[in-house]
Parts: sequence; C-alpha cells; structure tokens
Amino acid sequence: MRNKLLCLILLAFTLNLQAENGHSLWLRANSSRAVNIVCAKSSPTLAIAKQELKQGWLGQNGAKIVLTVKNDKAIKGDGFKLSGNEIQANTDLGILYGVYELLRRQQTEQPIVQNEICNPSYQRRVLNHWDNLDGSIERGYAGRSIFWHDVEKGYAVTDKDRNLWKEYARANASIGINGTVLNNVNSSKLMLTTECLAKVKAIAEVLRPYGIKTYLSVKFSSPPLIGGLKTSDPLNPEVIKWWKDKANEIYKTIPDFGGFLIKANSEGEPGPQDFGRTHADGANMLADAVKPFGGIIMWRAFVYEANSKDRACQAYKEFMPLDGQFRDNVIIQVKNGPVDFQPREPFTPLFGALKKTSVMPELQITQEYLGHSIQLVYLATMWEEFLKSDTYQEGNGSTVARTTDGSIFPQKYTAIAGVANIGLDNNWCGHHFAQANWYAFGRMAWNNQITSEKIADEWLRLTFLPKDEKLTPNVADWQKTFLAPVKQMMLESREATVNYSMPLGLHHIFAGLNNTHYGPGPWFGPKGIRKDWTAAYYHKADSLGIGFDRTTKGTDAVSQYHEPLRSQFESVATCPEIYLLWFHHLPWDYKMKNGRILWDELCYAYDKGVNEVRQFQKTWDKVQPYVDAQRFSEVQSKLRQQCRDAQVWKDGCLLYFQQFSKRPIPFEIERPVYDLNYLLKTDLTELLK
Amino acid sequence: MRNKLLCLILLAFTLNLQAENGHSLWLRANSSRAVNIVCAKSSPTLAIAKQELKQGWLGQNGAKIVLTVKNDKAIKGDGFKLSGNEIQANTDLGILYGVYELLRRQQTEQPIVQNEICNPSYQRRVLNHWDNLDGSIERGYAGRSIFWHDVEKGYAVTDKDRNLWKEYARANASIGINGTVLNNVNSSKLMLTTECLAKVKAIAEVLRPYGIKTYLSVKFSSPPLIGGLKTSDPLNPEVIKWWKDKANEIYKTIPDFGGFLIKANSEGEPGPQDFGRTHADGANMLADAVKPFGGIIMWRAFVYEANSKDRACQAYKEFMPLDGQFRDNVIIQVKNGPVDFQPREPFTPLFGALKKTSVMPELQITQEYLGHSIQLVYLATMWEEFLKSDTYQEGNGSTVARTTDGSIFPQKYTAIAGVANIGLDNNWCGHHFAQANWYAFGRMAWNNQITSEKIADEWLRLTFLPKDEKLTPNVADWQKTFLAPVKQMMLESREATVNYSMPLGLHHIFAGLNNTHYGPGPWFGPKGIRKDWTAAYYHKADSLGIGFDRTTKGTDAVSQYHEPLRSQFESVATCPEIYLLWFHHLPWDYKMKNGRILWDELCYAYDKGVNEVRQFQKTWDKVQPYVDAQRFSEVQSKLRQQCRDAQVWKDGCLLYFQQFSKRPIPFEIERPVYDLNYLLKTDLTELLK
Repeated sequence: MRNKLLCLILLAFTLNLQAENGHSLWLRANSSRAVNIVCAKSSPTLAIAKQELKQGWLGQNGAKIVLTVKNDKAIKGDGFKLSGNEIQANTDLGILYGVYELLRRQQTEQPIVQNEICNPSYQRRVLNHWDNLDGSIERGYAGRSIFWHDVEKGYAVTDKDRNLWKEYARANASIGINGTVLNNVNSSKLMLTTECLAKVKAIAEVLRPYGIKTYLSVKFSSPPLIGGLKTSDPLNPEVIKWWKDKANEIYKTIPDFGGFLIKANSEGEPGPQDFGRTHADGANMLADAVKPFGGIIMWRAFVYEANSKDRACQAYKEFMPLDGQFRDNVIIQVKNGPVDFQPREPFTPLFGALKKTSVMPELQITQEYLGHSIQLVYLATMWEEFLKSDTYQEGNGSTVARTTDGSIFPQKYTAIAGVANIGLDNNWCGHHFAQANWYAFGRMAWNNQITSEKIADEWLRLTFLPKDEKLTPNVADWQKTFLAPVKQMMLESREATVNYSMPLGLHHIFAGLNNTHYGPGPWFGPKGIRKDWTAAYYHKADSLGIGFDRTTKGTDAVSQYHEPLRSQFESVATCPEIYLLWFHHLPWDYKMKNGRILWDELCYAYDKGVNEVRQFQKTWDKVQPYVDAQRFSEVQSKLRQQCRDAQVWKDGCLLYFQQFSKRPIPFEIERPVYDLNYLLKTDLTELLK
Repeated sequence: MRNKLLCLILLAFTLNLQAENGHSLWLRANSSRAVNIVCAKSSPTLAIAKQELKQGWLGQNGAKIVLTVKNDKAIKGDGFKLSGNEIQANTDLGILYGVYELLRRQQTEQPIVQNEICNPSYQRRVLNHWDNLDGSIERGYAGRSIFWHDVEKGYAVTDKDRNLWKEYARANASIGINGTVLNNVNSSKLMLTTECLAKVKAIAEVLRPYGIKTYLSVKFSSPPLIGGLKTSDPLNPEVIKWWKDKANEIYKTIPDFGGFLIKANSEGEPGPQDFGRTHADGANMLADAVKPFGGIIMWRAFVYEANSKDRACQAYKEFMPLDGQFRDNVIIQVKNGPVDFQPREPFTPLFGALKKTSVMPELQITQEYLGHSIQLVYLATMWEEFLKSDTYQEGNGSTVARTTDGSIFPQKYTAIAGVANIGLDNNWCGHHFAQANWYAFGRMAWNNQITSEKIADEWLRLTFLPKDEKLTPNVADWQKTFLAPVKQMMLESREATVNYSMPLGLHHIFAGLNNTHYGPGPWFGPKGIRKDWTAAYYHKADSLGIGFDRTTKGTDAVSQYHEPLRSQFESVATCPEIYLLWFHHLPWDYKMKNGRILWDELCYAYDKGVNEVRQFQKTWDKVQPYVDAQRFSEVQSKLRQQCRDAQVWKDGCLLYFQQFSKRPIPFEIERPVYDLNYLLKTDLTELLK
C-alpha cells in the first residue's frame, strides 16, 4: 500500500497535470467530439444551449440531439423532459437547463433514461449578494464584489466586467439558479438612484440570456433618503406613489426585473415598525408596487430585539400573528435556523407554522460562521439535514422542503435564497471547495430531495477529474483513490466543524473581536454591548452547568415547535444530543447516552473535531497525484490552517468552559497547546498573516 | 483510574498547596526539628554550615552532629567523610559540602553509611556567566544579569544585590560549585578597569564564605584597549608586564581570585594569532602572570575558520600540535561537542587526544539550542552521555570523564565549566525545570560518575515534595504518582528535543534569523554570510541525499577519533544511527536498521518528538494535585508552547527537506500544519507574543 502511494506521489511530481486555477469551476469540459443539433427555434438562450452542447458533448461522436420547445403539462416552469437524443421544454430556458443536465449526466457517467421529467422544486432560485456599493462584501471572503468593485470610477461598465458576469451567469444557469440579488441586504440608499439603476440594467442584460432575473435589496427608508419625502410610512400615499413610480422606472429599463429583497426593522435597518405599522403593511405596500410587472417582495424574518430573553423566539412571535395578511407576491424569507447561520441549529419554527403565507428558506453559502474561505466545510449536508427536518405541521413527512415548495401549502410563488460566496478571486470563492457550496445550493434549489452525497459526487467529477484524455483508462482507479476518499471528507466536513467549534447544540460562541466571526469567542462580551450579542447569553456556562434552557421551564422556545417535536425537545431524555445544549441547561456531570459525563463528552467532541481535520489533511495529501499543482497546494495550505484553527477552537472553548466545570480534560485527550489568556486577546484573522 | 485522577484534580482545586514562585530552588527545607551541633572551630564558612544544619535538619529531633576539620589523606581537596553523626573534612568548605550532602540525604531519603568518603571529581567546578556589563546576557533567557543589571547607575552595590548574590552563592555551594566567571567570554574591555574590579571585589566578598572563587573573562587585547599599549603581542615585554601588573592589582583586593577565562582568536575576538603567535604563547603569558597567586588560565578551544571545509575539525587541528607546550596552570576549555552545544553531537576529539595538556569540559547549562527557557529539556542525560563516552585513547574505558578528571592523565588542575542559565527572573532560570540543569551541572561536576536519573530523583524530591507536613503520610503515593512520571519526563526530554529538532545526527539547522537560535532554520543562509554559519553547510541536503560526509572520503573528521571509533564512525554499517548524518551523506532511500528508508525515518523521528512533548503535557497535567498553582501553571504554559514549537520544528524541517527528497511524508504521520513559506520568514521568538 505504501509503495503504491509512493509511486503515485512520484508520478505527480513528473506527470504535470494541466495547471488549473479553479476559475472554470465545474465547467471544465472541452470535448473534441461532434454533435448534430436539431432545433427549430432560435433565441439568445437557445444559442447558448447549442454552444454548450458543442463544447461539452461527451455522447457518441456525431450523434444527433433534438431541442424541442413545446408545451407539456407534465413539465413545470422551466423544467424539461430529458432523453438521450432529445430535450423538450416549455421554455427556451428549460431547454438550456436540459442541456446542462444532459451534459452533466454524460460528464459524470450518470444514466439517461427516455422521457425523464425534471421539474424544479422552487420557482425562484436566488443568490443573495451581500455586496456593498463600495465594492466590499459583507461576510465575503473571496475578494471584492464582481458587480461593484470599481465604484470609485463611477458606474461605468467595461468589457471585462461583462465577460466576468457572463461567466457568472453561465455558472449559475448550469446549476439552475435563475435569480440574483445584486446588493447587500444592509443596502445603500444609492441603490435606487437612476445612475445606479443604469448599471443594474447593464448587468441584467448580460444575465438575461442565461435566464437569470435581477433583484435588488432596497432600504425601506428610500423615499426620504433619496426621494425628498418626509416619511417612509408604508400607508402614506406619497410613499406608496414613490414606490410605484420607482417600480415603473425600474421595469421600464429592466422588464424582467425580479423584485425587492428587504431587511426591515432588523439590526438597525429602518422598517414599517418605525411608524407603528406591521411587517405586512410594509411588505404589501411594496408588493403592490411591483405586482403589475410580475415582481415579488422577499421580506426577511431575521428580526430580534436587544432585550429579548431568547432571540431564537423572536421571528416566530413577530410573524405568526401576521399569517394570512401578506399579499400573494410577498414571500417571507426565513433563515434555516432561529439564531443565525450557526454550524448547527434546529430549523426555524416558522417553517410549516406559517400556513397562509408564502415562506422561502434563506441559506448562507458564504461561510460566515463556518470558517470563511479558510476552512473546508461542505454545507450541503447541513442543508440536507435542514430541508429534510420534519416540522410535523401537517402530519408526518411535513418536511421543511415540503412546507416551502408548494407541496403542502399553496404558494403563488415558491423560492429559496442562498447568500453568495462569490467574489473577484480567481477561483470565485476563495477556497476551491467552497465552489461546491455554490454548486450544491443551485442543485438543491432545483431539487430539494437530492442528497448531499450525490451532489458531492457530481461536483467532484466535474471539478477534479483530470482533463488529460490519457488518464481516461484510469477513471476507475480515480474513483476509488480520489473520488471516494475526497467525497467522504466533504461529507464529514461539516460535522467536523460542529465538533471543533460548537458541538452538542452550542451556538453563537464565535469570536466577536473586530466582528470577524472567525474562531472561538465563548468569552466574547465587551462592556456595554447588547446582551444578545455576547456569547454567554447563548452558552450560559456557570458553576452548575452549561446550555440554554429553552424548555417550558426556560424560555419556552420548544412550544414554537409542533408535536411531537415540542415534547421531544422538552425532555432531556428524548432531546437529540446534537441539540442538547440548545434546549437544555445541564450539569457538568450530566450523564450522556454513551455513559460519559457532559464535560467529558464536550472534551471528546472538540478533540474529535481536531482529529477529523487531521484526517482530512491525510486524505488530501494522499490524492496529490490526481490534482494539478496549484489547486492541490492551495487546498493543502488551507487545510493546514484549518487544523491550526481547529486546535484554537478546541483549546479556547475547553479552557474557557473549564473555568466553570472545574474538571480536568480527560487524560486520554491531547492537551491544549494555547493558554486561555493568549486566546482571549487574539484576533485569529490577524494571526499568522 | 479516571475516577482516581479526577478526585486528585478536584483535590488540587481545594487543597491550596503552599504558593511557591520557584525562587527557593531546591533549598526549600525548613525543619522544625532540633539538632545539637558540635564544632571546635569557627569561621564564616563553618557558621554557614551550622546555620544550614539547623534550618534543614530532618534527622532525629535533638540528635548530635559533630563537625571535624582534620586532615585525612583519603579526603581530597574539599571532599569530606560522612557519617550520620559526623562530618569530617580537610577544610571548612569540605565541612559545608558535607552538611549539604547530609541534608540532601535526609531530605531525599537516601541512606547514610558510616565514614563514607565523598571526593569531588574536579577541583574547579565553575559557572561561566555570559553576562555583559550592560546587564544583558548573551544566550540568557531568565532576565538580566544578577551582577551587572544596574550598570547605568554605575558600579554601585546595594544590599539587595548582596542578598541576591548570597542566595546565589548558597545555591551553588549546596551543589558543590566553587567558582564563577562573572562576565561574558565575549568580554568588555572595561572588565579590567579599576572601577569595574571594585565591583568584582564586592561580589567576591559575598561569595567567599560559600567557597566560591571569582574568575573573569578578559579581552586578550586589553593592554592596548585600556592600558595605552600599542600591542597585545604576548611576547612583547610591555604586554607581559601589563598583565603581571594587572594580576597584582587584582590579587591585592581579591586574594582568592580564581583566574582568567579567555576566548581568543575565535569569532572575531582578538588573540595571539593576530601577532603570529600560538594559543600556547598567549595562554602561557597570562598563566605566568597569575601563577604566583595560584591563579589559572582557562583557554577556550572553541575556534573555527570561515573557510574551513569542516568546522568540526578545526579545534583538533589547531590544538594538537601544541600538546605539551602549555603551562601547568593553563587548562584548555573544550566544549563537549565539536560544533557548538547542539542537541546531540559526538564528543570533541580533543578529549583524551591532548595527553600532555590539561583539558576541561565546557557544558552549556543555558539552553541556547535546546529551547531557551521555553522548553523543558533536562540536560543531564546529554552530559552523562558525553562524560561516559569512551575515547579509547588509553584503552577501553578512557571515558571523557576519566580523561579530564586526572584519572588517566596527570593534571595539576582539573576543572569543568558550565555556561550558566541564571538571571534576575524570580525563579532564576526562566523555566522551573531549567533549575534542574543548574543543579545537575553542580552534581556532575562534583561526581562525574553520577547518573542523570539519580540527579533528577534528588532534584524533584528537593524541589517539588509538598512542604505541607500533613502530606507526609502520602509520600509513597507522591513517589508513585508524581515523582516517577515526572522523572520519566525529564529523562526523556532531551531525546524528545533531538527528535523534533535535529535527529539522526543532524546539527546546526536552527533559526538564524535575528540570531535567536530558537526554532528551525535548515534554510538559513542569507546572502553574503559566512558559509559555515549557514545551515546547508551542515545538513548538505540535495536531490541525492542528506548529511555531512566526515569519513575519510569526506573531510576525514573520523580520523580525529581513536580506534575503534574511527572505523566505527567511518563505516555506515557500524556508525551509530544517532550520529548517522553527522558522519555520512546518505541517499534518501538509504535503508535504516529498522527497514525504513532514511527519509521515512526522518519523518518518524520528527513526529515522534512532537508526540513525546504531547505526552509530557499529559504527564504534567496529571500531577496538578501535587504542585502549587503558580509553578504548575507556569510549567503547563511552557509545555504548551513547547508543543506548538515542536510542531514548527517538525513542519519546517520536513517541508524543507522534502523539497530535496521529493517523497511524501508517510501517511501514518500527522501532516504539517504550517506552510514552508510561512515558516521561512517567521521569527519564532516573535510569534504569539
């Protein structure tokens, strides 16, 4: 075995795999085989479809493929019917999606049966860019904004921009994404100015042939801020008119404009509550403005009060009373978890509970709390866990997926959003493996029943199979020696992160220093800060124990869940241990199911996380012969840092909590290598730069 | 087992062991038992002896002890004859040493037989302080100089100074040290000025009752530098006179002055070769100056040329031709290894080879290359290895110890030197366990046959046995649970350091950046630097292999060793693997005795070193109940850093050498967590500050 590996490594030093910098994403195919395309219709979108077929065709050389735009009731929206020699769809975009699917099957060696219907789970599959107009990106770890990077030069658009946006559009279309919000939910007042909208128009023109609608985040207080009005009260006629006029202006230049995304009355952003109005008042006013054009309003439910006893309860409390009061083109955009994109949270209880209101999940593709673009964390396992969570709201099987995609509750519009991890970095996402999260979001938005394992398999084949045709006979070997272990690493990666950062239901104990959200900060809580921004608010460690009591004896967050979940979470005996400290404050010597006491189990979890990353390093080092030098060494380097930082997480959290538990770290476990005092004052994003 | 440990830890949190900051060193005894001392004579030294007996007596309460100063031919120098109720010696100092030995036996529960003769191995047991007159210490890691710290205020001496020097003298006397060189071998020209000598006098007065002679390092060029002469040519009559006058001046105020230590024609220091004279010419001139007063000259053999093909050969080449030419009060002071105090070197071949010249070993107590005061490295195992090395110069059993202590070659003076690790830090040595190296040097200087294991045992009992009398019944438990594992850790610590820094005979690959000598630097070699100061000069790694060929086909350093060593080192088959790369340049796939190839073995060695430190951490954490809080946490914190830095050593060396070996690190081994590029530019002493 060792000798074999050795040979492979030596091979890698001599083979010179084609250099790749990751910019091609999963779209690396460049076939030399010919294909004979038959298509009665022509359009910019169909032209793209044909071009893609030519470039990526891995079917029989010279084979015929027919593209048919024809209505079929079995085909929904931009879905398609796929056969080996024909793609049929109701729309041109459906054809394009069918082409990408066909090529993907060919390139990943998946079977193509005759007349397979492929319909999307959600109508609107939307990226949210938290890009600021100054070119920075909130929670962006892959360079500056691809849309707003050169704003100091005004809103001019260059050919280079257009080319990049086209690549961006192609990548999105290839995975079914059909909408993008171009700017941060903490939006600039300048977004709706005419100058800025001119640039939006230019972007929209590039995206349009790829079927991607453009959306904007808007400031609720835009009328006074840029319109000269005195208020933004949603019931004020002038305000209503201002928004209608603005909608008219937008749709005149961008007829397929998607709509608005609003963060209102949340973290200091203005909103209808500033005028004693409700979220429904605000959302409906905007919905009326865009309705004539088919636009939608995505209204975020990410709200929490400074003095709430339990932030996790807030969204439910504010939105449930409004159920049924929203227009049919309003969709409430709800983060997967009730706190904030933590490594593990139970699902937000609004899912399934809002029965007369359209609801869309908001996932975070960018790794704000999961290691930025430093750590290899494949998020699809987390999203799968979330989408398949049973809310029980309409009986067994009322999964989050089914409560949001129209299967259970009728919604005029269904949608899903993912906060993008895209920037100007050569490889788009900072970390080569972060591309997998972009890819996975698209694939899950299209099919919310797909497994994270299948997506990882697809993505790895598309992204890493050596292009060199000479290697083709070795594909079987590649599958065994590269694909299997690397896929395994991806599938384990999120759980590893949970282990070394916030295991057993811990949450919100990340570094607050400089607002980086990178590394541990269970101690975070500078003087004068809002309590719900401190870590202790969430972990509540004390001499007696640790965890947040959200049972009926605590904040009663459990009661926001439908039975049997409510009872399951309420009882420490039935509460899943992955959520234990989310719902319970337990003594340090609480006996876990495996017989260990809670403190020891916590120690073992952190230690396990560190060792899992070490295992990832081994996995990656072993596949060196199969990866081009640049991508290999970039990932290797990031895994090294991840390992160091996992150690920091372990040491920081265990040494901090040990102050309360007053118990030794079990001696089977490797000891901390940092002093707590050192970690308390360290900004990890600055360390080792 | 776990439960038991748990209890102990909990105990530690509640027991409140007496706080200790380490300043008391191994002299913590404070007995309440009475002793009846009978002594016919009185002197300052005997007064100390009596005071020590009273303070530390752990024999029967009220027992009688007789101190007898009486000549006995069986007793040599300051040796003594020990019985449970009597100490006899030729000198007052012998009595004091006997008292310390008696107390040590009592405190460490060692037997005392009747009339045991204890004679010192070396007559002069000398500390070398590399203290500069500006208060800094070259290679000092425990704060500023205890002698020269306040030099900006002139040469004034305070009561605080005197008190500290007295503690220093007591500590030294308690382990048999009877001489100290007060200043750096790279000495200041001001050392011999009258103002400076006045301070030396004050120091000497404090040390004198403890039997400690004062020595000075002097600059060979003193006559021109401070005497107004035009030369320092040792054959120049004016020069000769100047030194005689200076000796007269010194001995007038310090009648027991020990003599001079000289670093000449070495690393830029002036010396007789500047005038075409030999080391013998220089040393003898000085020897003549101090001879009337019983003074000695310690002349260092640490010489090497910039363009030498092999620095390790230089001292032998320069000094062997001079054998027999030195005065009988000159001792050639030779570092244990031929390069420079590396973690492992074979002994310098001058030992035993110089048959008509007095030779003294120079050991380095301060951890210049062995982790400063950060790493826990017990050096006595290294010194034992060195002293017991067989030179074969006069047949089997011609150990370094026996070639230097007068057993084989007649020497008028025998001596041994240790470069001190002492500074103004509260705990004297920076690291609590570095005290053990000071202690061990003294004990080995007294008895060069003693084992490092015995010293560790003694030192631990004296230094860490809880003072609390209530704990006395638990001594057996303490021996098993504290003493045994901690002693084990000490005994393994030097080998661990060799493993994670310079295994298999590697040497001189430490960090050169900022001249810190801390951390790895196999890449060190800035432009324009002397070749013999670069690391590559020593490791000679290339695509073919690694190691320094010192066989007859290489630099022929092997021929400086007496048979059978010469042949043993010459042949790769018989060369001990601990010296493999010291003597041989071998291919990366050279097969080791265990079947591994050299590259793999190197990887396993570095990894083993890291894991050994991790084990030390566990060992230490487990004994927390037995150690006062301050010393426990200070050692714990340093072990954490040692673990981090061992990882840096491993990563730095393996990734650097991998560039040549072009082989994978065996996959059983934990992967590096740092990038080579990062380490190349990092000064470890700055990291994490």
